[in-house]
This record gives sequence, structure tokens and C-alpha cells, in this order.
Amino acid sequence: MWVYIDKIADFVDKEVIIKGWLYNIRSSGKLMFPEFRDGTGVIQGVVAKNGVSEKIWEDFGKLTQESSLIVKGTVSKHPKKEGVYELQVSDLEIVAIAEPYPITPKEHGVDFLADKRHLWLRSPRQMAIMRVRNEILQSIRDFMYENGFTLFDAPIFTPNACEGTSTLFSTDYFDLGKAYLSQSGQLYAESGAMALGKVYTLGPTFRAENSMTRRHITEFWMMEPEMAYFDIDDDMNLIEDFLSYVVQRVIKNKRQELEFLGRDLTKLEKVVKPFPRVTYDEAVEILRKKDIPLIRKTANGEEQIRPFPWGEDFGAPHEEAIVEDFDKPVMVHRWPSEAKAFYMKRDPDNPKVALGVDVLAPEGFGEIIGGSQREDNLDFLLERIKEHNLPMEEFEWYLDLRRYGSVPHSGFGLGIERLVSWICNLEHIREAIPFARRPNRIRP
Amino acid sequence: MWVYIDKIADFVDKEVIIKGWLYNIRSSGKLMFPEFRDGTGVIQGVVAKNGVSEKIWEDFGKLTQESSLIVKGTVSKHPKKEGVYELQVSDLEIVAIAEPYPITPKEHGVDFLADKRHLWLRSPRQMAIMRVRNEILQSIRDFMYENGFTLFDAPIFTPNACEGTSTLFSTDYFDLGKAYLSQSGQLYAESGAMALGKVYTLGPTFRAENSMTRRHITEFWMMEPEMAYFDIDDDMNLIEDFLSYVVQRVIKNKRQELEFLGRDLTKLEKVVKPFPRVTYDEAVEILRKKDIPLIRKTANGEEQIRPFPWGEDFGAPHEEAIVEDFDKPVMVHRWPSEAKAFYMKRDPDNPKVALGVDVLAPEGFGEIIGGSQREDNLDFLLERIKEHNLPMEEFEWYLDLRRYGSVPHSGFGLGIERLVSWICNLEHIREAIPFARRPNRIRP
Repeated sequence: MWVYIDKIADFVDKEVIIKGWLYNIRSSGKLMFPEFRDGTGVIQGVVAKNGVSEKIWEDFGKLTQESSLIVKGTVSKHPKKEGVYELQVSDLEIVAIAEPYPITPKEHGVDFLADKRHLWLRSPRQMAIMRVRNEILQSIRDFMYENGFTLFDAPIFTPNACEGTSTLFSTDYFDLGKAYLSQSGQLYAESGAMALGKVYTLGPTFRAENSMTRRHITEFWMMEPEMAYFDIDDDMNLIEDFLSYVVQRVIKNKRQELEFLGRDLTKLEKVVKPFPRVTYDEAVEILRKKDIPLIRKTANGEEQIRPFPWGEDFGAPHEEAIVEDFDKPVMVHRWPSEAKAFYMKRDPDNPKVALGVDVLAPEGFGEIIGGSQREDNLDFLLERIKEHNLPMEEFEWYLDLRRYGSVPHSGFGLGIERLVSWICNLEHIREAIPFARRPNRIRP
Repeated sequence: MWVYIDKIADFVDKEVIIKGWLYNIRSSGKLMFPEFRDGTGVIQGVVAKNGVSEKIWEDFGKLTQESSLIVKGTVSKHPKKEGVYELQVSDLEIVAIAEPYPITPKEHGVDFLADKRHLWLRSPRQMAIMRVRNEILQSIRDFMYENGFTLFDAPIFTPNACEGTSTLFSTDYFDLGKAYLSQSGQLYAESGAMALGKVYTLGPTFRAENSMTRRHITEFWMMEPEMAYFDIDDDMNLIEDFLSYVVQRVIKNKRQELEFLGRDLTKLEKVVKPFPRVTYDEAVEILRKKDIPLIRKTANGEEQIRPFPWGEDFGAPHEEAIVEDFDKPVMVHRWPSEAKAFYMKRDPDNPKVALGVDVLAPEGFGEIIGGSQREDNLDFLLERIKEHNLPMEEFEWYLDLRRYGSVPHSGFGLGIERLVSWICNLEHIREAIPFARRPNRIRP
């Protein structure tokens, strides 16, 4: 009976068939210890020379790393290690002998590994990350489904951009000129919220930014919920519930993978609501107290500006300084409105700030969520679109959402690969997605 | 307490708050009967002139269709209709009076509705479809998750095309020339299956085909599982299990929506495994017995060729003739290899046919799934790539999957919008996705 290695504990003392690949093999006189992998796990086999035919013994000698094979054997408990199983091998069918495998236990450069991404994915670390990614995305979908959200896939081809066209990819679109690849499904999700109450988009989004940082890819997945009748506080409450659920479920179901990745789970275990809520004003106070300057590039190098000036956006050193006193994600809200997107509602109590919230992950992983209450007043929105020099005619449909039954509403955008990077403790976002796309890479 | 209408049955005789929109209103002397919608459902309110303040009575008179409002009232059972509830209204807060709403109960042309898609989505029919779509996609994800598949999001930007570049959208990609938008994640999923055993992709795919049919959109979602050590029979077994699960779960959880859409549920209830398996040869026999000709366009119009010639692909009339004697999806397998993609494995018993399977939905909804066992022999694959004049250098990484531990493997691709169209019984695929993209439409 063909079984997967992750289910092997159910088959102790039974004869099973495993279909997979050779991960490693060592021999010791009349015993060989091949390690098999099948995508769900790794199990060590025990091959006794006097327990198998001469042909099988010889065939094991021919196996190279990543050769594909079908083995039969009896499952036994490891004599010393609790929860570990072995396969007492009785039969072997070689499916294909692999050519010398290019990825060996020695250190490889990242460019080499990226060139071999289709094979690199077979390494235990990459497989662990992919399993955690799977659990994260299923947790997200389950949370949304259980909490009454309707999936509302936003289009990728769009005629206009939320915030200008400079960082957009475009394609020729039949007789309609250019179509731009979406950077965000938010505006579409807003139309969904006006129909269905609570919706979310979850799909790839695109940014044509020539950034070769550890935190940027050109094609990344984003989850964007949008809720009618939610104000900024409801939005933050949802973020807390949502992130707590996802992180705790991933710890529960993928503990083994996270431990394998060297993740400090005690840090993730603290990610339960409530999260600290810090206004932008308070965050600036923190920066000033810690004497973290704004760094501005000048013709002669850079200039350090102290104290940190109100109104400026935060960079990595500022985010780190803000989160270091907390052991949870920090929700920084009420940002200077000048710097924020046209669709954000201004705080009625203080129009200098917009009802936006950025969620900064702990441990210096930076922003993972950006959200806001949306401007629901038609006249203010018209003004804002003019101020931002956006093409009014492309926003007429969006303005309709304020003409026909406008309601207070809020939402946020979550970068999936940033969330994966934080939960898995990755140094570089390129490991957070099967085939990362960066300005210098579209292959393989 | 703010409650959603789909949970109203839990609040009989309790005072609740509903936040939503006015769907309709009629009055009868000293009573008014406003209908409220909140995205989760519709409930009729009862407003008695002597039960509310004069201001509230007057305010109800001001409400236009789609005006947004917050109402308070007590939930009661409908005096005559089982399972129907009413709201005995005690208070009203008008959030915004809507301008005259452009979509009225009269018939509108489809172009008008497509132009107003952001509002059309508020119609009960469109909302029902979106809720079914949500259930379908969650069922798919749950099935894959529960059955040991790892999500493996394939890249959208690709340097090459499975089957030529003529139907691909492209974009300038920094210094790397053109990137093409993926038509299929299959080749990438194959690399995932060699790592993780069983994987699936589920994301948007793109086809730059200038087709204005009822079954084509340029941007459509596709689910593509890929399984190591699965042959074509395992593939068909999986398709049966998968489709049966999804269809039966959607009937169970979205019966009300399907009934509202006028779906004949007795037909969907029959979609349980096993499904009929018909070889291409047998399908051709059916066509010949029913005397369905091949229709070929010629300079003078069209020519009808009888009997249906072996080797030709099927069109809509052929698919309909094949499925009409069955009340389940029909799996047509073992197709003429000449006409099929380079990666399909040929039948070792008969190299004239490839181990491919197309699943035809019942009731004439046509192909919803295409799958195959993949060619796992390096030399055959090299030959096939040459025969198809594909750029070998772009496939080197894919060929690596055969160099390093090649195994028999299979997979399939499922068009989400075609599945939604079939389950919801839609005449046109444009209703199966929030914002359908067609050659003549990228707006709104």
C-alpha cells in the first residue's frame, strides 16, 4: 500500500510502499541506510545485505542523490528516538537514476541557487517555507470565510492607477490602448463592500520599482479586505483578530517546520490581541526621545535632521526604534494626511492627519499591513483627486460609490510575502514565494 | 447591537441594529414597508406611523433606492411565511441619500450593465453568483488542503510560453526585455510536485485571444494541481473526487443562492463519482453514430465532413452530442497526440494517442478541465520540443526535472469561471467574475 511519509506513524509493523527520491545514503558493512523523501517528509531506510536479493543490494549501490525510486518495506519505530520511524526495506524499484545533482551540501551562492530555483525548492529549508506559506494562506482564507467575508477577486488589468503610473507594468490591450497591471485591488474591493458588506481580494499585484532590496519583489501577493460600516477602530480590531488567528494557527499546525527554520517561537506566541496602538504623533515622540534622526540624501552625501520632523515618513531605522519596546505588532495610526493616498479619510478631529494605520511587525520586520478608513464624502474625494492630479474621468465609477449610498468603510492591505518572511524569520523575501520576480530576474 | 441579516433568525424578539441600504420601499396608509439590504441578505421592515416619531416617519419618505441607513428595531417572525423575518422599526439614521439610482427594475442592455458593473454587482442575482463563487473557491482550497496538497503559487511573469507567444500579453521588464503574462502555471507546478509531492496553483492566467464568445475572458482564474507518481488513471480518480466534493458542498451550503438563480439542483445532485470515462476513439464513434459532421471553413463558406474524421478536435456541437446521453461530467481521454501539447505523455500501448483527459461538463457547458500524464522521458521530451519549434534554451530548467529524478506525474487545469458558469447555470462567463476582462473591455 502506497503511503506518504507524513502518515507513516499509522503504519508501524505494517508493510508499505513509498514513492519518492533518494535524499542521502550511507553504508556500514552489510547494512545500508538510505534516506528517502517523498515531498511530505524524510524517512531512513535500513537495508540488510542478507535481507534482500543480490540485485536489490547492488541497485542501492547505484543510486545517486535525487534518484527516483519506489521502495517496499516494514515500518518500525526508531530504537532510540521517540516519534521517529524507519523502513526495514524489502524491495526496491529504481524509477530513474539522477544525473549528478548540482545542489550539494556545500555552500552555494544565492545567484546559483536562484538560477536553480526549480531544484533548490527540494531543499528541506525551502520545502519548510512552502509548507508554512500554504498554512498561512489557508489560515487567511479560513478566517475570512468563517467571518462572513466574500471573496471578491479584483481584476489585474486596469485602465488607471491609484497613485500614478510611474511604477506600473503595462501591456498592449487590443484596440483599447494600454492596460496596467494592478498594484492594488482596493478600489474594486470598495465596490464589492457596497454590494456584499464584507469582501476580500487575494491575488498577485505588481510594482515596477527598480528596487533590489531584501523586502521588494515585482510580483507579490496581497490580501485586501474591505468592510462597509467599519471605521478605523473597527479596522484595527479586525487586524488584531486576524493576525492573532493566523500566527497562532501556524504555530499550532506547522511547529515542526518553524522549529526547523530556527524560528524563535516564544516571540510568535506573544502575537495575541490586543496590539499596541500608537499614533503617528506618539511615534514621532518615541523617535525624538531615542534621538533617531531623519536621514535625507543631499548632493554632498546625507544630512541628519534632528529632532525627527513631524510629517515625514518612517524608514527602517525608525520602524525598528518604534517596535523595539514592544513584543507584538505595533499599529501606528493617524498619519500626516499630506503624505497619504487620496482615498484616505481625514480625521474629523484633526484634518492634518488621515485615518490610516500601518502595522509594523516586531523584531524589525517592518510594515506588513497598511490600512485606512476611506473617504466617504463625495466633495472631499473630488477635491483630493484634483489635488493629486489624477485623471478624474477614470475615477467616475469609483465616485459613484459615494453618489449611491455612501457609507463609512475601511480596509487594509496585507503583503503575503512579508508576512511569510516575518513568520519564517527570513532574511530575504526571495525565499517567501516559489519563484520570486525581481528587477534582474524572470527566470526560471 | 449591530447584526447582519443572514444571522437575524438568532435575534427573534430582540432589538437589533442593521446597517445597510434601502433596497425598496412601499407604503400603505399609516404603514411603510422598507426593504433593507446589508450585503448578507434582505429583510423587510415595518414602520408604523404611530410607532415612530414624526421625524422618522418623514425621513423614511425621503429615502431613495440605495440610500444608506442605520435602522433599529425588533426582529419578529413573518406572520405567514416560515423562515422569514421582519424588523419592527423603531429608529432610523440616514447615512446618505442616494442620487437617482441608474439600475432600475426595468430591463437594461448588457453593455449598460457592464459599464455600471460596480453598481450592477449590488443586484440580487450578481450577489448570489459572487456568494456561490466564494463557496466554490473555498471548497477547492479546503479539498486541496485536506488532501495533502501544498499551495504553490506560480509566477505570472514568465520568459517563455508553453505553446508559443501568439496569444500572450507582454510587458517591458527592466533590462531583461519582455516578460509574458502566464497562460498556465503547469510547468512551474511540475517543479513543485518534484519537491513537495502534491501541489496546486490557483491564480489568474491570461490569454490575449481576440474572442468575443460567451466562454472567453482575457483574464481568468485557473487551478492547476500536479502530483508526483500519479498516472492518467490516478489523475482521473482525483478529478472525480474533487469535482464531486466541490459540487455537493456548494449545493449544501449555497442552496438558497442556486435556487434563486433558477438552477436545476436535481442535475447537480447527480454529479457524484464515478464519472463516465470515454476514450477519444469512443467519442468519435458516438459522433459518427449520431452523424455529427466536422465543420470546416472554406473560401466558399463551410464544408461538412462526414463521418467525423479521426484526429480532429471537438467543437461545441460535438461536445454537446457526446455529453447528452450522460447526466454527469464526461472524461474524454487518450486524445490524438498530434494535436496535443508537447508535454503530454504518449500512450505506451498506442503512441498515436496522448494520455490526456478533457472533462466536459453536462448540459452542454463544455470543457471545464484539461489534464494529462506528463512526458517523463528526457529524450522524448527533447524530441517533442524540437518538433514544436519551441526555444530549447528556455526549457532547460524544465528538462532538469527529467534529469534529476524523473517520475511519472500528472495534473490538470480547471477554469474557475467555467466551473462557476456551469454550477450557476450562467449564459455568459462575464457574470462569473467580479470584473470580467474581454477584448473590448477593461473598464471600470
